[in-house]
Amino acid sequence: MRPNPTWTRIETDQLGSRMLPGEALYGINTLRASENFPVSNRQIGELTPLIRAMALTKKAAAAANWRMGKLSARKAEVIGRACDEVIAGQHTTHFIVDVFQGGGGTSSHMNLNEVIANRGLELMGHACGEYEHLHPIRDVNRSQSTTDVHSTALRIALMQGSPALERALLSLADAFAAKGQDFAGILKLGRTHLQDSVPMTLGEEFNAFATALRLDAGRIWSVTQDLTGLNLGGTIVGTGLAAQPDFAEAVITELQRLTDLPLRRAEDLVCAAWSSAELVRFSGMLRGISVTLSKIAGDLRLLSSGPHGGLGEIALPAVQPGSPLIAGKVNPVIPEMVNQVAFHVAGADVSVGMAAESGQLQRNVFEPLMAHCLLTSLGMVESAARIFASHCVQSIRPLQSACTANLSNPETLVAGLEPLLGQATAAAIATAFSEGQDITSLLREQFSLPVDKKE
Amino acid sequence: MRPNPTWTRIETDQLGSRMLPGEALYGINTLRASENFPVSNRQIGELTPLIRAMALTKKAAAAANWRMGKLSARKAEVIGRACDEVIAGQHTTHFIVDVFQGGGGTSSHMNLNEVIANRGLELMGHACGEYEHLHPIRDVNRSQSTTDVHSTALRIALMQGSPALERALLSLADAFAAKGQDFAGILKLGRTHLQDSVPMTLGEEFNAFATALRLDAGRIWSVTQDLTGLNLGGTIVGTGLAAQPDFAEAVITELQRLTDLPLRRAEDLVCAAWSSAELVRFSGMLRGISVTLSKIAGDLRLLSSGPHGGLGEIALPAVQPGSPLIAGKVNPVIPEMVNQVAFHVAGADVSVGMAAESGQLQRNVFEPLMAHCLLTSLGMVESAARIFASHCVQSIRPLQSACTANLSNPETLVAGLEPLLGQATAAAIATAFSEGQDITSLLREQFSLPVDKKE
Amino acid sequence: MRPNPTWTRIETDQLGSRMLPGEALYGINTLRASENFPVSNRQIGELTPLIRAMALTKKAAAAANWRMGKLSARKAEVIGRACDEVIAGQHTTHFIVDVFQGGGGTSSHMNLNEVIANRGLELMGHACGEYEHLHPIRDVNRSQSTTDVHSTALRIALMQGSPALERALLSLADAFAAKGQDFAGILKLGRTHLQDSVPMTLGEEFNAFATALRLDAGRIWSVTQDLTGLNLGGTIVGTGLAAQPDFAEAVITELQRLTDLPLRRAEDLVCAAWSSAELVRFSGMLRGISVTLSKIAGDLRLLSSGPHGGLGEIALPAVQPGSPLIAGKVNPVIPEMVNQVAFHVAGADVSVGMAAESGQLQRNVFEPLMAHCLLTSLGMVESAARIFASHCVQSIRPLQSACTANLSNPETLVAGLEPLLGQATAAAIATAFSEGQDITSLLREQFSLPVDKKE
Amino acid sequence: MRPNPTWTRIETDQLGSRMLPGEALYGINTLRASENFPVSNRQIGELTPLIRAMALTKKAAAAANWRMGKLSARKAEVIGRACDEVIAGQHTTHFIVDVFQGGGGTSSHMNLNEVIANRGLELMGHACGEYEHLHPIRDVNRSQSTTDVHSTALRIALMQGSPALERALLSLADAFAAKGQDFAGILKLGRTHLQDSVPMTLGEEFNAFATALRLDAGRIWSVTQDLTGLNLGGTIVGTGLAAQPDFAEAVITELQRLTDLPLRRAEDLVCAAWSSAELVRFSGMLRGISVTLSKIAGDLRLLSSGPHGGLGEIALPAVQPGSPLIAGKVNPVIPEMVNQVAFHVAGADVSVGMAAESGQLQRNVFEPLMAHCLLTSLGMVESAARIFASHCVQSIRPLQSACTANLSNPETLVAGLEPLLGQATAAAIATAFSEGQDITSLLREQFSLPVDKKE
Repeated sequence: MRPNPTWTRIETDQLGSRMLPGEALYGINTLRASENFPVSNRQIGELTPLIRAMALTKKAAAAANWRMGKLSARKAEVIGRACDEVIAGQHTTHFIVDVFQGGGGTSSHMNLNEVIANRGLELMGHACGEYEHLHPIRDVNRSQSTTDVHSTALRIALMQGSPALERALLSLADAFAAKGQDFAGILKLGRTHLQDSVPMTLGEEFNAFATALRLDAGRIWSVTQDLTGLNLGGTIVGTGLAAQPDFAEAVITELQRLTDLPLRRAEDLVCAAWSSAELVRFSGMLRGISVTLSKIAGDLRLLSSGPHGGLGEIALPAVQPGSPLIAGKVNPVIPEMVNQVAFHVAGADVSVGMAAESGQLQRNVFEPLMAHCLLTSLGMVESAARIFASHCVQSIRPLQSACTANLSNPETLVAGLEPLLGQATAAAIATAFSEGQDITSLLREQFSLPVDKKE
Repeated sequence: MRPNPTWTRIETDQLGSRMLPGEALYGINTLRASENFPVSNRQIGELTPLIRAMALTKKAAAAANWRMGKLSARKAEVIGRACDEVIAGQHTTHFIVDVFQGGGGTSSHMNLNEVIANRGLELMGHACGEYEHLHPIRDVNRSQSTTDVHSTALRIALMQGSPALERALLSLADAFAAKGQDFAGILKLGRTHLQDSVPMTLGEEFNAFATALRLDAGRIWSVTQDLTGLNLGGTIVGTGLAAQPDFAEAVITELQRLTDLPLRRAEDLVCAAWSSAELVRFSGMLRGISVTLSKIAGDLRLLSSGPHGGLGEIALPAVQPGSPLIAGKVNPVIPEMVNQVAFHVAGADVSVGMAAESGQLQRNVFEPLMAHCLLTSLGMVESAARIFASHCVQSIRPLQSACTANLSNPETLVAGLEPLLGQATAAAIATAFSEGQDITSLLREQFSLPVDKKE
Repeated sequence: MRPNPTWTRIETDQLGSRMLPGEALYGINTLRASENFPVSNRQIGELTPLIRAMALTKKAAAAANWRMGKLSARKAEVIGRACDEVIAGQHTTHFIVDVFQGGGGTSSHMNLNEVIANRGLELMGHACGEYEHLHPIRDVNRSQSTTDVHSTALRIALMQGSPALERALLSLADAFAAKGQDFAGILKLGRTHLQDSVPMTLGEEFNAFATALRLDAGRIWSVTQDLTGLNLGGTIVGTGLAAQPDFAEAVITELQRLTDLPLRRAEDLVCAAWSSAELVRFSGMLRGISVTLSKIAGDLRLLSSGPHGGLGEIALPAVQPGSPLIAGKVNPVIPEMVNQVAFHVAGADVSVGMAAESGQLQRNVFEPLMAHCLLTSLGMVESAARIFASHCVQSIRPLQSACTANLSNPETLVAGLEPLLGQATAAAIATAFSEGQDITSLLREQFSLPVDKKE
Repeated sequence: MRPNPTWTRIETDQLGSRMLPGEALYGINTLRASENFPVSNRQIGELTPLIRAMALTKKAAAAANWRMGKLSARKAEVIGRACDEVIAGQHTTHFIVDVFQGGGGTSSHMNLNEVIANRGLELMGHACGEYEHLHPIRDVNRSQSTTDVHSTALRIALMQGSPALERALLSLADAFAAKGQDFAGILKLGRTHLQDSVPMTLGEEFNAFATALRLDAGRIWSVTQDLTGLNLGGTIVGTGLAAQPDFAEAVITELQRLTDLPLRRAEDLVCAAWSSAELVRFSGMLRGISVTLSKIAGDLRLLSSGPHGGLGEIALPAVQPGSPLIAGKVNPVIPEMVNQVAFHVAGADVSVGMAAESGQLQRNVFEPLMAHCLLTSLGMVESAARIFASHCVQSIRPLQSACTANLSNPETLVAGLEPLLGQATAAAIATAFSEGQDITSLLREQFSLPVDKKE
């Protein structure tokens, strides 16, 4: 049904007429936008989760409109099928608007409206552009506005992406916890201010990484829940002007069914039309997780430093040669990647805050930037956590002799233990240690940890 | 009991001896730190909530130590009394260490230990510096370390400050909601992209401000709850080395009693010794609230712009003359203050993130910066919200004629309403409007808002 | 010469052997890195300016090595030809390492070394992977390390990209200045605090935009000059260990010739090996330019607001329909895009600062993130400025009647002028104005501007 | 002359009458502002450099006004004397407006106008508040507006503060360079990615710190020069409306004389009235310097880590006991302070950027926040650099045995040197080293450093 590439068609809007490639599923609105914003070379087709969530929203809206007698069964069906194809990842090359676009997402939205209309026309046996049979606005966009569709889709995309992030963090935590168990018997030097402090075990150190990640993961759910309030049905400024009173309920019910998410209508649609508070909060959550990841990555780089002229208490797996010049050098490339992702997310968080703060009056027109920052950060933090686990943490080996050596200085040991255990005990332990005895149990006796920490 | 100012005393530590003013409640540690960090001219005495929360922690520790037989009743009692004085706001001039200090809070902590010891000595009838009777470390600091005391106190200070923030936001929300009710009947132009859009009411606009603030306020509690996990009893690196096994429980019980906060022991004390995740989250919350406040402040400045050559739809109260040159000019100085507080908090949030991320190994030594940023931001956001309500929002007046005039252009009205209501209805409404009729109810009939929004 | 896609080859490194697609110009190092960093879905092939500048550096190094007798003429020649192809934009699909990579750029660097070696092998009539004839490290990377090549290339890429940014800003300034001239006679209301203030001309307002942009453009040169100090020849930590004493001079001379840039050797190569100060400064410059652009974009959105219920003093060109719902609505999509670019650059600037600050000891391993941030920001600011000029500023029209109307309130006029001109003059001018007289010259007489401002 | 504290006086403005303490040098404007902005508890009296620079500007304006016949000699003289007192640091307790104030600095400005008027009145033998003899606006503020005075004063304050910053950085650089010379003969391990790399000298490492700081210091001048363009004479929106044509020149000449700064009139006063580009640039400079300082501080913490279980290659001086618990522990408290200052400045830089970006139309009303951020950061960076030199760097000692030990692993040495020097030479050097020979000269022979680096 798709016309051949050499064929062209003409579309017209209030600004005039334009020729389009015959096979283009997008239309004149998209064409203009793609010409207006050659900014970043990144097209919205790359923001897969957003495109998918917008298509879900469109599909739900078509179903709701049909149910309310506003759209024929035939139209609703082809819109649904076209949406399904987009959801399945087809037609991505037809989403050509730059990620950096003005207009508050209208261009992304129109790009999708046009792709769905044209793909629907094809499915109906019509040629692209014959909008009298299926119209991007009157049919595909019925009862919707960019204000509600873009905002809804972004929230759904973030909710849909969150479980993978949670899983990635928990897997990483598990990897650390497994090492924590393996390393439970390895006594080592604890350090504060990077200075020698009191003994602890490598297991305790790794368990703490697991704890921190689990705590972060445990907060994802509640932040994600804040996103469930949608402004569908609010139309342009949230007053719901001209929307069917029951459209919102119908479309949200449909979306719940399609996404299995606990969606609900925002309490105050006028507020929901402009407020980006939940997006800022989500961004802050990603920043917080990144801070934890980056701190841990930095610690692993320190603990694996050397190996001779550094702390050298653990060995990271060699995932690639470290240097074209120095044979055998293995650099902590995975933690370094994690750090950089964290720095990037911290910057993106600033951008999101500025975008949210700069919104004026009834709508935040900077939502496209927020979508870009949030979805990019979400994907990258998840990837970074996954790679961190699989390519680094799972294969960390302890370097027990260095752990012992770093601790073994009697002076250090006495200095660290004396104020806590008294001079006599400290000296006795240091002596035992320097005589090569396993002082772990000796020290353990002195630890005042709760039983569950000692197991 | 306090010696006269010309009297001096000598104290000695591992680095040598120093002369102190006889009346100084602080000691040699504090003196050295005050000389080491003449950085910002801001002394920790200004961070009242932190000093107070540290003193609460000290008092609780003294009680717990007494209960466990580690401190005599006499010493515990005078420590408690000295802490009470500090909690009551006395002795602030003796907290002289700069807010910008290295050492992870050790200097703030020692400043307090010394003040309590010396004030305790006075209460016991001894002279300052006679530490053989009451020792800053052996007695006042028994079973504690800076790692746990500073961290605990900061969390308590934030928890104690949060209700005032919540109240301030809710009061501000109430002020907006009251105006929302007053302005319910005032029809005005809604704007997206700063461009004329569809009609709405001024009441809806102000109600949305209230909603946004209430949503933000509603999130404070859960973020604050994350702070309840304390690392008391973990000692230096969280292993609890040399702490009495039941000290943590005893001191936390005591602190609960003193503060009425749902405090508990952190699950993983090694993690709690270095993790700043809850602080980052709290900072992010303050940033989020600031974004909302700043967006609203910006809107009020826009809505009150002019009054002639701007939107001029509301009048802010005149709280001070606007210009030494232009008589009668009244500037939106309160919203401008709010914006600046928000910009400041956004910057402080970046600082907190960097400090948290830069922590290494067993402890985050940058907690003093985080304390400074968080407590300063918390106080300022609360003040800004309170002043915003009392000095601005509560006295905002609508300028109804401008609301009407901005909406009254028939072209605007028809353009806005036609795609929603159809050409005929739109034109009819525009005509009615231009004839001076109250079209509110006419429009209301067309609104598809749920009933509760129409009341 | 390129083998067919079904053919495969085996390469081996210290970690083992791997199979590669026969047609892959990259080798085993690249393959491993591409598997280690599936982070952002953005491949270094997208960072065209960096790849190009690295290839220029490689080409210069080959020439220098040949000149110093370290590389045969044949090898130098094919390396040069392979580099030329990369510089011309070929082989981009072979640069497959993710932009977010650990290792300080080693993977990007090895990707290029391998592509050049393999492409050189093809040019020599050998098969890819037959490194005994041309080796990615021993030949292509001779006398170089990632520390110097990546750092050098990034600086060259930024220097090469700066003139286009400068031109874009100056063109945008010219567009504003042209409008400033056109609008010289249009009297309008000046506003401070968004409140009515004293009269000025629309020309003055637009000229000021031009001035601000020209000042920003005028600073690019000096910041760019800071980048000319290269660390070539410093090898791994800047000590130049094992580099030919005159290699640095030879390669820099060659690079000067190839790039026409005033390159020089950094004074202190050990410092140059780790310092990112010039990159931070460049980032700050981009941030500063963005702030100016964003402020101006925000002003244009304000000045074009309405058009009826806003300031409405200028009309931005319609570059796309504003709303799927409201016919005729034209949104300020280009300025909105500019704002978002600015917010993004502000965030990226934070990331760059964190990356630079986090560098440790002899090298900053976070240079890949800085490269990504800087080159992306540079490209986007330049695009945004260009589009701003061509798609917006050049077609701005004044809406003179609104300018007059916003000013015409006699009360406003008298209030504004009285304290400056005295009551009598102010009232006379207001009267003249309200009688429809052109008060421009009347006001001009009262202006105390220097002659050049009056022309 | 000053009335006693129990005396009160009444002042009146357009909003009504208020009672003031009789001894208050401030007036009703200040009183109102102090009540409107109880935000941060920081009064503008703390921003000494700004108050001083505003007073300088006032004094210059009085002289210029007198010269132009606009002010009597008597009034100009008492204004000048009152300004001199403020410049000398008197009357600070009378500057009571909060640093966080709306109104674009009007309140700070009026606070000064009122203090000068009232102090002038006292000097004239009148009582405070008898403004008919010397008026805060008509006399003290003649031909000025907040737009130009606040902006001018901030620029002057920054210029006046810059030389101290430059000196502090250069002194710190000298301290590092002196150590660099002392440590020239100490061979140690160079590290990239925190991993063992090739040998270098401790002297080279410290020299590089000096170089980085000198490069940063060398950029201060040009950034400061950008501040010399003043908007004096532009009055409210930069059009110079109602200012005497030659007032700007007169006052700037006077200011040059008073400050010895190369002040000039901004080219475009309308632009200068709103542009904060130079402030953003200055802020970015402070951020850049902080990044350098923080990187170096982090390195010193790493190099001094341990001392036993860390790198331990240098010893920082003990400036205070490190821990109340561990005797002898000495923490790197000065570098930790430096890091925190840097994190704070990075955050303040974000705030400045947001404030500059958010300026609207003819004036940036957020200049007070920028003043606060910039002056605070400037002062703190200067202090941090000074303390860093005097309390840390100047007393650093090398720990030669650790330097040697970290390098001495033959495997490390061969691995590092082999690819550079060949297997035979590398092995020979490693052997010589392990036999306790001084291999410095041996290695030096292999170094390809220019002669000046070898001295």
